[in-house]
Amino acid sequence: MDQFVSMRNLKFMLYEVFQVEDLLPYPYFQEHNREIFDLTLETALKIGQDIMRPALREMDQNPPSFINGEVKVHPTVRTFMKECGEGGWIASNFTFDQGGQQLPQLMSTACQFIFAAANYSASVYPHLTSGAANLILSFGSEEQKTLYVPKMISGEWQGTMALTEPQAGSSLADIITVALPTDQEFYKMRGQKIFISAGDHDGVENIIHLMLAKIKGAPAGIKGISLFVVPKKRIEGQDQLVFNDLHTAGIYHKLGYRGAPITQLSLGENDDCRGYLVGEPHQGLPYMFQMMNEARINVGLGAAGIASAAYYSSLEYSRERLQGRKVNAKDPTIPQIPIIEHPDVKRMLLFQRAITEGSLSLLMQCSLYVDKTKTLEGEEKEPYHLLLDLLTPVAKTFPSEMGILSISQGLQCLGGYGYCDEFPLELFYRDARIHPIHEGTTGIQGIDLLGRKVRMKGGKAFTLFVKEVEQTIQETMPFPALAPYVRMLRESLESLKNITGHLITMAQEGKPEVSLADSTLYLELFGIIAVAWQWLRQGVCLQKALNNGLSEMETRFYQGKFYTLRFFFHYELPKIQGLLKRLGESDGLTVSMERAFFDD
Amino acid sequence: MDQFVSMRNLKFMLYEVFQVEDLLPYPYFQEHNREIFDLTLETALKIGQDIMRPALREMDQNPPSFINGEVKVHPTVRTFMKECGEGGWIASNFTFDQGGQQLPQLMSTACQFIFAAANYSASVYPHLTSGAANLILSFGSEEQKTLYVPKMISGEWQGTMALTEPQAGSSLADIITVALPTDQEFYKMRGQKIFISAGDHDGVENIIHLMLAKIKGAPAGIKGISLFVVPKKRIEGQDQLVFNDLHTAGIYHKLGYRGAPITQLSLGENDDCRGYLVGEPHQGLPYMFQMMNEARINVGLGAAGIASAAYYSSLEYSRERLQGRKVNAKDPTIPQIPIIEHPDVKRMLLFQRAITEGSLSLLMQCSLYVDKTKTLEGEEKEPYHLLLDLLTPVAKTFPSEMGILSISQGLQCLGGYGYCDEFPLELFYRDARIHPIHEGTTGIQGIDLLGRKVRMKGGKAFTLFVKEVEQTIQETMPFPALAPYVRMLRESLESLKNITGHLITMAQEGKPEVSLADSTLYLELFGIIAVAWQWLRQGVCLQKALNNGLSEMETRFYQGKFYTLRFFFHYELPKIQGLLKRLGESDGLTVSMERAFFDD
Repeated sequence: MDQFVSMRNLKFMLYEVFQVEDLLPYPYFQEHNREIFDLTLETALKIGQDIMRPALREMDQNPPSFINGEVKVHPTVRTFMKECGEGGWIASNFTFDQGGQQLPQLMSTACQFIFAAANYSASVYPHLTSGAANLILSFGSEEQKTLYVPKMISGEWQGTMALTEPQAGSSLADIITVALPTDQEFYKMRGQKIFISAGDHDGVENIIHLMLAKIKGAPAGIKGISLFVVPKKRIEGQDQLVFNDLHTAGIYHKLGYRGAPITQLSLGENDDCRGYLVGEPHQGLPYMFQMMNEARINVGLGAAGIASAAYYSSLEYSRERLQGRKVNAKDPTIPQIPIIEHPDVKRMLLFQRAITEGSLSLLMQCSLYVDKTKTLEGEEKEPYHLLLDLLTPVAKTFPSEMGILSISQGLQCLGGYGYCDEFPLELFYRDARIHPIHEGTTGIQGIDLLGRKVRMKGGKAFTLFVKEVEQTIQETMPFPALAPYVRMLRESLESLKNITGHLITMAQEGKPEVSLADSTLYLELFGIIAVAWQWLRQGVCLQKALNNGLSEMETRFYQGKFYTLRFFFHYELPKIQGLLKRLGESDGLTVSMERAFFDD
Repeated sequence: MDQFVSMRNLKFMLYEVFQVEDLLPYPYFQEHNREIFDLTLETALKIGQDIMRPALREMDQNPPSFINGEVKVHPTVRTFMKECGEGGWIASNFTFDQGGQQLPQLMSTACQFIFAAANYSASVYPHLTSGAANLILSFGSEEQKTLYVPKMISGEWQGTMALTEPQAGSSLADIITVALPTDQEFYKMRGQKIFISAGDHDGVENIIHLMLAKIKGAPAGIKGISLFVVPKKRIEGQDQLVFNDLHTAGIYHKLGYRGAPITQLSLGENDDCRGYLVGEPHQGLPYMFQMMNEARINVGLGAAGIASAAYYSSLEYSRERLQGRKVNAKDPTIPQIPIIEHPDVKRMLLFQRAITEGSLSLLMQCSLYVDKTKTLEGEEKEPYHLLLDLLTPVAKTFPSEMGILSISQGLQCLGGYGYCDEFPLELFYRDARIHPIHEGTTGIQGIDLLGRKVRMKGGKAFTLFVKEVEQTIQETMPFPALAPYVRMLRESLESLKNITGHLITMAQEGKPEVSLADSTLYLELFGIIAVAWQWLRQGVCLQKALNNGLSEMETRFYQGKFYTLRFFFHYELPKIQGLLKRLGESDGLTVSMERAFFDD
């Protein structure tokens, strides 16, 4: 079986860097222990190896079909959903009351990372179901909870998030799917939804859409959006499933991510599509943001997972492929060396490792914030909610954008073979390209970060983030080997504070469009610095370990980590120089560029 | 018909920037004139529109098949090769004596750019044939010229370059295909070749391989490599074609570039494969470098061409797609705006334009050097040969690496649609990924530039390059609008000189491996500065034009060019800051990283 994740690194993250065991004394997590965690990880790996990875190429080569209105998917989807239901994976981080396992988010994240690395397309089905069920649990009625959630967390029914419409992709204010009130407990739905992941398939018995729509007469824009449960088959009488006038109009033929169907839906063609309001009217967007934020973090995780799989594929190849000789030893009569001995190949491998493990670390940091909110009460939760809000666009985007480059370098290690389907790199390269697009494009994430998140509550979240980084810097004090990196991170953080202030001031001084014009670059800058912080955070732990007596094998692991940290600081962090230069200019070049100047 | 190139920009490049008409007074080019050039461009565009582009998606969806040892390709290949033969495209830059048209290389490059933008896979067949025929013309015997060249330039026979073997990809020193002398005029060939583009197909009557092999008993390494003509069917008697014991063992299933077959060849399974020595024994590699250098430039051109097609696809979509509103006008009751109005979309479009037109400019600069050598005599040619040698790895790599990012931004403009095969962006994204791999990977190009080219003849080529840039800087004097960019380029050039000196000194002081460890980054740095130079070169011409009275339409074109120039200097050139920082460190991080540290 090809390696797709490092269990050693996952345990380093969980037990050494994020110290998941520190959560155990809290009542919420008290049923757990290290043995359960280890077993959970092993089981996830086994599912990845036995069910998911063997279907990777097959699911790509036999994508969902759409015949006579039916979407057929690979049989592994049914097997995997059943396994996820029976094993408690869909509800792993729900409360015991909700049928869940109260697993720390750190652990759920580690397992989802394993699943995404094994087979990203397959990993999406249970995760979407989990998010949709969680949304009903958070805002739905008791009846809705009883009707839908048990079948969803058992893997029998699929959950989705149904937002996008033909005229409203990034602009949710413009959705026009309408919910007409009736004199009963349901609304009649009419409209179209597009790009709905797992929006229909035969791997489950029913599909439960968590859908945004506008109640007839609702206010214009986002203030008029409500949230509905719209099942493919509605429940009538005693568990009878009746077709709910919700038609699949088509599926998309995609570059990658081919194991999952992305569907177009048509609602109420026969005026008989029933939707059930979740929570209060016109509160749909704030509700949906719970699921959307989970989904955004999961996109980052998917990207990091695929990057991990690509890294290990290219590492294996680089160890085995003989080609060329050292610069100083060009005698053609001596044998060729494995390409892993060439500095440029090591550079490509270290780049992948720095991106993959740095991304995972940032995602785990977000997971830790989720767990903190579960151990704390009342106002104590707020800082962690704010940090999570702030970092969500970063944790979505850094792994997505850099993951593509990382996988591309993995492909490059294989030369011509990387371009051919004998190896999985070309598949990973195709799969990963979805991530800067779905659940809010990179451009949207940039505006979210610079236009909203760093300014919210008077910049409180940003201030908290700075404190978090400074806290890590404090922890490096006992380790002189980290001193150069502390200095680099401190300077970078100072630059980030300055440029953030500059951009916010510009917006306040009446130039909001110029201020936001390069928000994608600002997001890139923020991501590099956030991941440098994560590497330094790992640095503290690996220095601690190196100071203990270690076996040769363990020393190698920590030395490898330290080299990867150094790589990030020497090769990736310097990229902020160019970004800072540009962000400081604020000349509004792209604002003043006229549309007509593109004519030629 | 969808736009895939800008004829306006091509004419700007040819007639204003590179002033191809200045070549006309020279005897070599005296048969040509502006009308012929215009007609040539129009004809190339028509072929692109009528024959090539309509087959783009079909050739991708119906890639070459390999059944019963036969490679079948799309019928457009035959049509196009015939057209290229009859229209004189294969031999366009050959001399009249050779059956060519003595067209300036600048014109051939412009036409090849059009072909690559229309359909990259299709464009490869005639170009490879041209390179192979030119190699025979340069180094072959009169008999070889007579036997092979006419059928090749007529498009009846395909030419290839056959270098790679299973154990020798980037390391040509290790090829083992053997040529056994006989007592006749041929050698008996035995061995295997892999990754041979257009190495077999039914769109032509015969395949002529220009192949590297070692004569039995030859010296080890590259000093023992000879060049052979090895036809698929050899010519016996009066034009009789006889199978030459050259079997196709298979074809590769690739991520993209699917319109062209990449083959595995097996030679001499029945001890009856005849090869014909070209030129002197053991001189194969220097000979082959003529074709390889042409092929490298053509890879850059292919990348720039695909990037052009992607740019125009995304531009068209961005003009038409309505989504969202201005930052200052979020009232949801007003209509949505075309996404081209959003600064972040303009950024993505300007990025594409800056990369595409900047790459094309650098490639045309190289073409001008080729043309200069044809108008000059003896030692006067040398500087242009040196400049071409120096810039070849740059002109291959900058378009290839940046083209991928450019096309990816084009895909991003379309959001979810960019990921689906309703639009061609996903196809361009797949096609373009081959370019950093074939004809020498980016890693190999980096070592070629830093390890060989900048040092050759005591750094003479590098000095000439610096003079070329300084010459352009001189020409900007009358245009104060260019002053900020002159300053930026001058500083960048100074930095390039310093870092080059630093790296060469390190190699001379006994650290060659450390000196070369980041040669890929050095190549990236060089590429950015070279393309900034090209933008300033264009800047001089567009300022001249803007100083004249222009129509509104023309003013838009030049304003668009000027914005794109500014974009390159403000968004792309700053990237050298991070690269310079890293290149100056020279800590040998990737050299000292031990292979075992990758264990985890």
